[in-house]
Amino acid sequence: MEEGLSRFIRACYRQEVDYVPIWFMRQAGRYMAEYRALREKYSLLTLCKTPELAVEVTLQPIRALGVDAAILFADILLPLESMGIGFDFAHGEGPVIHNPVRSLADVQALRVAPPEEHLGYVFDAIRMIRAALSGKVPLIGFAGAPFTLASYMIEGGHSRNYIGPKLMMRADPGAWSLLMTKLATVVREYLLGQIRAGAQAVQLFDSWVGCLSPADYQQYVAPYVKIIFDGLRAERVPLIHFGAGTATLLDHMKAAGGDVIGIDWRVPMDNARSQLGPDVALQGNLDPVLLMAPRLELERAVRDILRRAAHHPGYIFNLGHGILPQTPVDNVKAVVDLVHAYNGAK
Amino acid sequence: MEEGLSRFIRACYRQEVDYVPIWFMRQAGRYMAEYRALREKYSLLTLCKTPELAVEVTLQPIRALGVDAAILFADILLPLESMGIGFDFAHGEGPVIHNPVRSLADVQALRVAPPEEHLGYVFDAIRMIRAALSGKVPLIGFAGAPFTLASYMIEGGHSRNYIGPKLMMRADPGAWSLLMTKLATVVREYLLGQIRAGAQAVQLFDSWVGCLSPADYQQYVAPYVKIIFDGLRAERVPLIHFGAGTATLLDHMKAAGGDVIGIDWRVPMDNARSQLGPDVALQGNLDPVLLMAPRLELERAVRDILRRAAHHPGYIFNLGHGILPQTPVDNVKAVVDLVHAYNGAK
Repeated sequence: MEEGLSRFIRACYRQEVDYVPIWFMRQAGRYMAEYRALREKYSLLTLCKTPELAVEVTLQPIRALGVDAAILFADILLPLESMGIGFDFAHGEGPVIHNPVRSLADVQALRVAPPEEHLGYVFDAIRMIRAALSGKVPLIGFAGAPFTLASYMIEGGHSRNYIGPKLMMRADPGAWSLLMTKLATVVREYLLGQIRAGAQAVQLFDSWVGCLSPADYQQYVAPYVKIIFDGLRAERVPLIHFGAGTATLLDHMKAAGGDVIGIDWRVPMDNARSQLGPDVALQGNLDPVLLMAPRLELERAVRDILRRAAHHPGYIFNLGHGILPQTPVDNVKAVVDLVHAYNGAK
Repeated sequence: MEEGLSRFIRACYRQEVDYVPIWFMRQAGRYMAEYRALREKYSLLTLCKTPELAVEVTLQPIRALGVDAAILFADILLPLESMGIGFDFAHGEGPVIHNPVRSLADVQALRVAPPEEHLGYVFDAIRMIRAALSGKVPLIGFAGAPFTLASYMIEGGHSRNYIGPKLMMRADPGAWSLLMTKLATVVREYLLGQIRAGAQAVQLFDSWVGCLSPADYQQYVAPYVKIIFDGLRAERVPLIHFGAGTATLLDHMKAAGGDVIGIDWRVPMDNARSQLGPDVALQGNLDPVLLMAPRLELERAVRDILRRAAHHPGYIFNLGHGILPQTPVDNVKAVVDLVHAYNGAK
């Protein structure tokens, strides 16, 4: 595959591939001893903001697993700092936003700055990762999607019922629209910057959007996601659109944009394919918990997914959500080998 | 409606009704000042275990709202005590299980006792509620479903990723099967006891089952749910089957049992109807957060649901999940009036 497009990029564009490509959401992280060793010395934000460290963490799973793509190590909240939102990570309990966004005035105060001003360390890391990878596998950039970022900004951290964003949509639609427009602009410019720094594909993570009804998604979220995808289309890199708990949102997500739609384990891959049609690539959808299951059970689940999905060239093996900290690395590696072997046997 | 079946029961059986019936999951609870006043004096478990208090709490929303059914005030974890599981409620943070179930030995040690031995206070409350209601509206009994109860027992409380139950299914299928069989027996007997004490319908709450793939649901959950519904069918009261996040499980849930299937807000009611067919009643599906939205937005959402659902007689208005503590009572009352008025205008 040295010549031309890599297997991963080809699959994103629904071109024939020799093997089904595979990578994992959160493939760099706490489940790896090498990562935990770095985290003993550095905070999560220090890892993100020190390009040398971000490069090292990004490469750890490339060395350990044999996956078909690298994904930039970063946190989806980083662009919020450039908007004037402060946050911290409280003892592995997830983020705590210091100044949550609660009113139109709060939204109006949010800055929309060129990403180079505050996020240059991300672009530096991308350039260094590309150099270190030297074409071995492509590098995926990413950002959080407006709804997911807005949820953090309004709720002040993880949320159970998403009361804040769901009410702002309706009680103050002007504030919601301005917030989502600002976030769409920031995310679009941030992803453009990543692509220009060398990201060969980008994934938009709308991790929490599954809390919405299809009507709410269409009215209050899709237009802003579309701003991002429309703004990236001319860049000629594959665009991946991911969410979890999205069984009833998939059609709308496809319409909002993306060459590849991420599917979680609640939707069987063959159903996702018949629902979304042949003209989009799909990525997914192993339940991350299965990476902790006995090996035979894990293999059975992987084969079942391949059977449902791999007959279409536009398919990338992945999880339905990120790798969990308790995951044994050996199981992750076994899945890579199994996916590659399955395709060899085609 | 004094003669014959009530509007709610008729709708459960898909018989013509004068108005669409309405009740709310968690219609008795912290959003009501009357309830909070009692909770200042008594713990949640004291309210559940003192029939006079459970009666009072059950009746509060009947007096305040004009809903078409009462639902027993109780907690889904109560039957776990009879199995030898201790638990407590930590400062409104949800339940904490003192002795979580982690091994086959733990499962083997679980008791399956006749519900009269430990849950007589529930049956007493039901008899007293029936007397107090004196036929005004029917009384719904309920229980947690085996998967949801097993999740609490294994995880020791609320869960984010349901790692424990998902791994026990696969790593120790014998323990899982025994646990689910014991829970199915306990829940079936508990609901039979409720019906015999006077419950005129019963709802099975599988609140957390939406974390599973359809294949996992079918293999590891549905057979045990079926034991319960099969065991109740001869009782000739409507059986309601509820879960949240179940867009891809609805067919399997219908097959497992229930005269009525609960739908959450992620599935538009007309889609739920075309997916499940005409031979089952549906209940749902307002997003509980909308009860906090501006009145016009709330009314718009309620009308949209009615438009999608109310043309079929087998329809009961409800939420997609329980009422949240921050909900204004006036909004809840307004929804009751709106649903009743809509039907009057048919």
